[in-house]
Amino acid sequence: MNLRDGQMRIGILGATGYSGIVLYSLLRQHPQVTQIKLYGHQGNNESAALFNERVPAFKTENYPIEAFSANQVMQETDCLFCATPAGVTSQLIEPFIKNNFPVIDLSGDFRLKDPTSYEKWYHRPAAKQEQLTHAEYGLAEFHHSISGHYIANPGCYATATLLGLAPLLLEHLIDLQSIIVDAKSGVSGSGKKLSASSHFTFINENISLYKLNAHQHIPEIMQQLKLWDPAVKPIQFSTTLIPVTRGLMATIYVKLRSGVTRRQVTAAFQAQYQNSPFVRWRNQQLPDLKAVVGSNFCDIGYGYNPAANVLTVVSVIDNLVKGAAGQAVQNFNLMWGFPEETGLPQFPVFP
Amino acid sequence: MNLRDGQMRIGILGATGYSGIVLYSLLRQHPQVTQIKLYGHQGNNESAALFNERVPAFKTENYPIEAFSANQVMQETDCLFCATPAGVTSQLIEPFIKNNFPVIDLSGDFRLKDPTSYEKWYHRPAAKQEQLTHAEYGLAEFHHSISGHYIANPGCYATATLLGLAPLLLEHLIDLQSIIVDAKSGVSGSGKKLSASSHFTFINENISLYKLNAHQHIPEIMQQLKLWDPAVKPIQFSTTLIPVTRGLMATIYVKLRSGVTRRQVTAAFQAQYQNSPFVRWRNQQLPDLKAVVGSNFCDIGYGYNPAANVLTVVSVIDNLVKGAAGQAVQNFNLMWGFPEETGLPQFPVFP
Amino acid sequence: MNLRDGQMRIGILGATGYSGIVLYSLLRQHPQVTQIKLYGHQGNNESAALFNERVPAFKTENYPIEAFSANQVMQETDCLFCATPAGVTSQLIEPFIKNNFPVIDLSGDFRLKDPTSYEKWYHRPAAKQEQLTHAEYGLAEFHHSISGHYIANPGCYATATLLGLAPLLLEHLIDLQSIIVDAKSGVSGSGKKLSASSHFTFINENISLYKLNAHQHIPEIMQQLKLWDPAVKPIQFSTTLIPVTRGLMATIYVKLRSGVTRRQVTAAFQAQYQNSPFVRWRNQQLPDLKAVVGSNFCDIGYGYNPAANVLTVVSVIDNLVKGAAGQAVQNFNLMWGFPEETGLPQFPVFP
Amino acid sequence: MNLRDGQMRIGILGATGYSGIVLYSLLRQHPQVTQIKLYGHQGNNESAALFNERVPAFKTENYPIEAFSANQVMQETDCLFCATPAGVTSQLIEPFIKNNFPVIDLSGDFRLKDPTSYEKWYHRPAAKQEQLTHAEYGLAEFHHSISGHYIANPGCYATATLLGLAPLLLEHLIDLQSIIVDAKSGVSGSGKKLSASSHFTFINENISLYKLNAHQHIPEIMQQLKLWDPAVKPIQFSTTLIPVTRGLMATIYVKLRSGVTRRQVTAAFQAQYQNSPFVRWRNQQLPDLKAVVGSNFCDIGYGYNPAANVLTVVSVIDNLVKGAAGQAVQNFNLMWGFPEETGLPQFPVFP
Repeated sequence: MNLRDGQMRIGILGATGYSGIVLYSLLRQHPQVTQIKLYGHQGNNESAALFNERVPAFKTENYPIEAFSANQVMQETDCLFCATPAGVTSQLIEPFIKNNFPVIDLSGDFRLKDPTSYEKWYHRPAAKQEQLTHAEYGLAEFHHSISGHYIANPGCYATATLLGLAPLLLEHLIDLQSIIVDAKSGVSGSGKKLSASSHFTFINENISLYKLNAHQHIPEIMQQLKLWDPAVKPIQFSTTLIPVTRGLMATIYVKLRSGVTRRQVTAAFQAQYQNSPFVRWRNQQLPDLKAVVGSNFCDIGYGYNPAANVLTVVSVIDNLVKGAAGQAVQNFNLMWGFPEETGLPQFPVFP
Repeated sequence: MNLRDGQMRIGILGATGYSGIVLYSLLRQHPQVTQIKLYGHQGNNESAALFNERVPAFKTENYPIEAFSANQVMQETDCLFCATPAGVTSQLIEPFIKNNFPVIDLSGDFRLKDPTSYEKWYHRPAAKQEQLTHAEYGLAEFHHSISGHYIANPGCYATATLLGLAPLLLEHLIDLQSIIVDAKSGVSGSGKKLSASSHFTFINENISLYKLNAHQHIPEIMQQLKLWDPAVKPIQFSTTLIPVTRGLMATIYVKLRSGVTRRQVTAAFQAQYQNSPFVRWRNQQLPDLKAVVGSNFCDIGYGYNPAANVLTVVSVIDNLVKGAAGQAVQNFNLMWGFPEETGLPQFPVFP
Repeated sequence: MNLRDGQMRIGILGATGYSGIVLYSLLRQHPQVTQIKLYGHQGNNESAALFNERVPAFKTENYPIEAFSANQVMQETDCLFCATPAGVTSQLIEPFIKNNFPVIDLSGDFRLKDPTSYEKWYHRPAAKQEQLTHAEYGLAEFHHSISGHYIANPGCYATATLLGLAPLLLEHLIDLQSIIVDAKSGVSGSGKKLSASSHFTFINENISLYKLNAHQHIPEIMQQLKLWDPAVKPIQFSTTLIPVTRGLMATIYVKLRSGVTRRQVTAAFQAQYQNSPFVRWRNQQLPDLKAVVGSNFCDIGYGYNPAANVLTVVSVIDNLVKGAAGQAVQNFNLMWGFPEETGLPQFPVFP
Repeated sequence: MNLRDGQMRIGILGATGYSGIVLYSLLRQHPQVTQIKLYGHQGNNESAALFNERVPAFKTENYPIEAFSANQVMQETDCLFCATPAGVTSQLIEPFIKNNFPVIDLSGDFRLKDPTSYEKWYHRPAAKQEQLTHAEYGLAEFHHSISGHYIANPGCYATATLLGLAPLLLEHLIDLQSIIVDAKSGVSGSGKKLSASSHFTFINENISLYKLNAHQHIPEIMQQLKLWDPAVKPIQFSTTLIPVTRGLMATIYVKLRSGVTRRQVTAAFQAQYQNSPFVRWRNQQLPDLKAVVGSNFCDIGYGYNPAANVLTVVSVIDNLVKGAAGQAVQNFNLMWGFPEETGLPQFPVFP
């Protein structure tokens, strides 16, 4: 798209959820954004309020949240971000697609190309096939050239897992039926909604698996892995809830193909990510969550167990930044031709 | 040994470390224990103090901690528990073995039969071979008939992992080169010692892998697995530190042998543990840490992913109870012929 | 009442809330209790389930939860514990009072003698005046001789605060208009109910005040303080939610009356609590939460600032044990003439 | 000083402690800073390393840490920040003062004007009296016009407490002998040093008081309060360690002078802070920690208890930002004539 330097007008649908709040923070500090408009959707009944009434921590941010209207959005803004739960954007996207209006969608509604798969994993109606075809899956490190107007921003688990697996598949280094992912996520990944599994006394001093082999990010991971190597077999994918607010770790176990060396593993990762400012290759140092929380980084390191021929790849992100709002801004930068790092946090919140 | 109902005199060496404190609590409430003597070792410079001076939370427990003397212990008590760091018991055990004096050792010094292996994994001199031969590995559910006087109480990771794998190996249900264990432990597992990796700001809001494929409980696990099936291959074993004080989860991934069914898996676990009061088989419900913390239970559940042919077994314990002091008391009960549950907590601390 | 050694049949109404679960644990291990019956109330729709279906951590405890019927309770049990939210027991208590049937009520319904006060602080209808008159306020250390059948078990904040203030008022050591209590409580104090303020991401890495000078335990505290010294003035009472599951600290600030010395303070506390097994006087050592969590202890210590003439008294309890279920069992012991410590945990969960 | 727009060269002494790391992050993103030099001091043995070797979370920040030399600092930089423990800057400051070289000192070495007081509270030798006289106490909201070259950046407890008390003293609204501060701080306030009281198992699920009426920020608070109202009496000051990494709350209790109204309280705070971009007056809404952590804000709210005539003021900051590095940058901006907000985070890390 044409570079509109320093004069972008942005709309956010769903700014008061966790991803939306982080997105709001990032865009408010983005040097190319001059105006932000907030819109509410029915799912959270947020319209007709001020932003800081819903998010008191942002006391001085008194933007009004207006009722969503596609026409109004297209008149008032240059690009719409949707930080909405599943099932919202598929219901309201039609006019935007018709008008080639730029949309960056943080929800899962347009990630899967196959509507049947969406319906199976999300337990709700899918968007229309032609709309799904139209959307581009925005795993930023592998999708620098955005040609269309509709970006499906990847899920948090998918981002960490795919970035940790990509060089291994693209360089054919691993046994394709050996992939096991033991992923751990902080509680903000499940959003603001009240549930027994987000109650403090359940999470605190506890860890628990949930949606074992049933998480909706699995088909999204498989879809992308198959693009990289169609011969890949179904993976094992476990998700464990950990007592932290932010941060996600994918611990990935694979068997190396016969004859593959550590040197090749290192070389594949280095080559793949040498021009990726947000992937920090740690080599044989295993990253922890606090290395990335608050930043848009994905840190990746590995260890190799020769006796068992198991390569352990550890990939960590902030689920709300690189796993959601940060990558959305990265996609925004790529879409409009701004430098990829523009407006994105490069320092973790540390300590 | 002869049952000495209600008149056991107990010695504890190292009662002010984390395992020692829990052990002290359990023995103080054990109906067969009438007298407790505490002894200090040089490693923690604890002698010549009162117990409650070192552990103020136990304000009314003013037992003196005396300097350790083997003769004195053998005169004053009927059984010695050692809750000591690696390298302590191997230095002082000789008179006890010579005299057939009962010892339950919570340290790793006598778990490995092979002194070379000990020296490789513990980075210190091993006990003498004849002493190692003398010791019995006390994984309580698999060692009901204690014949000797020296129990090597298993490590926390080993306990959770072995209980989660045993029926699968004993019944030959799995591919023996497919075992991957992604274990997670609370910080108390690393003991009281100050280190950068036990500092609150490092652990809090963080998770991190440590000792990948290098944890000293790995050879202990392999030693026992080989007893169950000599054909077992080296395992992948990862240890992740999580921001909780107590609790340990072993998430175990294995491939089923061709033709093996879920029904067989369930049957193997049920049969194995039907008479084990401290193993709670959860079947296809996956246990969380809080189900067991504060108790001597090991809860085990599983999920099966047919597309990837991966069985996920989740085994959880309180690392300081079933993973240390609780199992030591369980071994004590077995050694002296008391009912296995005597004096052991059967209710988790909940919520 | 008559001692019925070792043959008590107990009913619990509301065993699946946090206090109820702890109460259940304690009574299941109480040496004088032979039988437990569980009853559900409409507030939590818990009846017609098994206990372990509602509380999976107690897997082997498959007691049925039956619908509540006063007649049935009086036939099947010897004493009823009510671990119910406000407004439940006042609706169902009548037949028990009429029949002099022993009830220990953990809710706030019968703590305040003045129904107007109840209605002001609890925002709901009060029990009848004659019923309120009938109930005895069971602050166990000050109510050893239980004469009636209906015990109103104190609130958690009230317990810690009253035990920390009692000797000062009874011995007339302080300025009666100087009392300021800065109390901090873990999240389990607010119960199992889902709310924005019990969501993990709100509580974690946060502290927040709530119900400033509006907490319903305040009138209960004032009522008791006035019994100790009718001249006491209204107190300042702040409640801060802290990111822990269990534990409550009351930091109490008072000005000493002119001429009062530290020695007198120490003497007053020592004399008051010398025969109270569950109050551990720490003198000038200030207790932390972990000294008591898991136990029925209330630890109390103090510091004195002569320049400002401010005495700081720190009183800590486990809000679910001494602040709820533990004290209820203590009252049960007192009511039936069992030794006060019977069945009560005397060791904190530590570390 | 003369504005040197966009070309400031900065030195940091002690960049690898907690305050230093945050300071480094802020200055690296500060639009007026073009060059940063890092210097090590003997206290942490950090020199001769790269920054990212000491702080792996900042992987791509490979600045060398050089040995400290006053001459070199004065040649290579325009302004020095010292993020050092007590006792360091007083030893090395002389050449900087002699040369009128700008220094912003985050340590406590130059906050107290009275060397005797320093030696009493810090238990170490004080700086020379003439040096102490030279330094300016940089509570930024009350020290906009920086005239000298040496800023003593306030302590974290002092910042939150003083900002919460200032309008009340300046407007003579309170009883001057009634001030009680119950302050709570996250663990990062105690720095990186290993100690039993920073061990995860001590802090987690716990709160504890420390240095009751003995914290070294007390004389700093008293010194400033006396400047505002010489009649102020010694305060009560309690410090409680809470299980969070970052965040500090001062809960301040005072009695209003006879006749003073809530309206006057509100008016005093509003008037005082209307032009202070980093103080957010919340009026009768009580702020929580997460409203400010990650930002340079100090949020202040209050509640009034008419029955006890107690005003509760709640003041919260991020101890490492507004309580250390952020305020240091704010002072830097004021010193050099940059807009006060330059380079300072205005959005909390949320959720």
